[in-house]
Amino acid sequence: MKVGCLGELLVEIMRDRVDEPLGVPGIFVGPFPSGAPAIFADCLARLGEEVFFVGAVGNDDFGTLIVERLQKDGVDISGIKRLNDFTTGVAFVTYFSDGSRKFIYHISRAASGQIFPQDVPDNVFLRLDFLHVMGSSMLINDQCREAYLKALKLVKQGGGKVSFDPNFRPELLGKERARELFQPILRESAVVFPTAEEITVLTDESDVDRACAKVLSQGPEIVALKKGKAGSVIYTKDGKWEIPAFPVEEIDPTGAGDCYCAGFLAGLAQGLPLQEVGRLANAVGALAVTKKGPMEGAPTLKEVRDFMARAERREHRC
Amino acid sequence: MKVGCLGELLVEIMRDRVDEPLGVPGIFVGPFPSGAPAIFADCLARLGEEVFFVGAVGNDDFGTLIVERLQKDGVDISGIKRLNDFTTGVAFVTYFSDGSRKFIYHISRAASGQIFPQDVPDNVFLRLDFLHVMGSSMLINDQCREAYLKALKLVKQGGGKVSFDPNFRPELLGKERARELFQPILRESAVVFPTAEEITVLTDESDVDRACAKVLSQGPEIVALKKGKAGSVIYTKDGKWEIPAFPVEEIDPTGAGDCYCAGFLAGLAQGLPLQEVGRLANAVGALAVTKKGPMEGAPTLKEVRDFMARAERREHRC
Repeated sequence: MKVGCLGELLVEIMRDRVDEPLGVPGIFVGPFPSGAPAIFADCLARLGEEVFFVGAVGNDDFGTLIVERLQKDGVDISGIKRLNDFTTGVAFVTYFSDGSRKFIYHISRAASGQIFPQDVPDNVFLRLDFLHVMGSSMLINDQCREAYLKALKLVKQGGGKVSFDPNFRPELLGKERARELFQPILRESAVVFPTAEEITVLTDESDVDRACAKVLSQGPEIVALKKGKAGSVIYTKDGKWEIPAFPVEEIDPTGAGDCYCAGFLAGLAQGLPLQEVGRLANAVGALAVTKKGPMEGAPTLKEVRDFMARAERREHRC
Repeated sequence: MKVGCLGELLVEIMRDRVDEPLGVPGIFVGPFPSGAPAIFADCLARLGEEVFFVGAVGNDDFGTLIVERLQKDGVDISGIKRLNDFTTGVAFVTYFSDGSRKFIYHISRAASGQIFPQDVPDNVFLRLDFLHVMGSSMLINDQCREAYLKALKLVKQGGGKVSFDPNFRPELLGKERARELFQPILRESAVVFPTAEEITVLTDESDVDRACAKVLSQGPEIVALKKGKAGSVIYTKDGKWEIPAFPVEEIDPTGAGDCYCAGFLAGLAQGLPLQEVGRLANAVGALAVTKKGPMEGAPTLKEVRDFMARAERREHRC
């Protein structure tokens, strides 16, 4: 399966311990290659699918780290620009023991945000099986959103499908603005990967089941609801399946949702039954949190199969 | 004495060990308040002079760290903007055992670079005793240079003087461009703080003594040549004085030159004889390198006087 992605490439610099604010001298670890679409792309390539990426980095050591990582893992990097006049994007992040995070970003005005419609190549996007849309990447700036709209048009025109991870923070974006921006994308999508909060905001339905049913009545074939440590739920017109989580020790939750989406598309590409697709996606998401760094835990197909086989043997023993 | 400064406010994030490249995951320490003009300003305020700063930070924890630090140390921060749409500038830095450094910056397009002529208040700059010009800050972008040119005009108009730290890297800027930009500033200055390399480039004279004599024939009253660990040399029309360095253990050389300039202006403000001014400046520069972080070593007047007294007692014992 050939999948296109578009969006921010950046490095993440994180506090080594929880509850350390960003604004006081202390220890950081990094840089780690990051950016939600980059994590998705890297993971999907490691799972064996063809991935084409449109993005931009600076001509600096951070950019080299990201591009070399994506290339090593098999992402087609021919759509990634290296800019002399812009610096590679950076995200500083710290976690608090209540589960909250705090960020300081250089993205929109850094190389990360220098993505324009002309960077989306017609010949590639007309031939994609899937375009994976990240809501957060559409929010970076106007040119990124326009590039996405061009990509969407090309993919639909070429007969490809759209998968959509809203990945926005309702408290920052505002409900009205979220609906205005993302309802059109939702209706164009075949597969949607929301959280419960996102889907209730986007549909203006407080009940999650009703929200998912509403989405399915508007075009999408599948809603795969991400529930973090509680696993996921798949909704189609034919029913609803709870997919239990794989218990793992969480080291770094960043990127788990992006890896879940990659696992899901890989499962669809393999033609697995939908519940098996969900199981694979849960396993990929679970492995993603077991290593420090946003894309360090992204498994290969062999790693995730071995992990699932071990988990199954444990279940049988119990 | 009332001194005006203008330029980049940023935080520095540094490798904890030498010879660690920036583009591989590892440990960083930071954020430390930084930016050459900010180091100068903070140090001069700690030495007891009135300092007015024109600059910009983002409305984020890094910006708060910088502004609170400058305020605590006595800098007048009423000319510092806090911007909602820009992120506080960041410099990543690593040192190598051959003495070289490598940087990755978010400055020009970050809050750091959002300084415009209208940010330079006439009423303040007309009343300054000194404007301290940082060559590096004039290079950030066009608006910073234009803001500096307005500041220069106001200070001269009000009868104030100019001190000039070229602080550029000839290998990056190019000799022709350096002369074109900085020769006009040099001629407007009363005090110039070059390195040997900078003064030979700016005057196109390969011999340092001849280069300094040439500068003194063009307007400036004092050339204070910075020689790092080897101390400094003061040139005036009346002669040349070698000022020996204070031996210290170097922990972090960043900011030493900026602190030297602050010490020099503080000495002038106190009306010390020129050799004493140079001695004070050397002592301030020496103390600056004894702590990790670009402005952490900046001493108060009491600290630098105690340090000089201790050094004198040691000299007498020898």
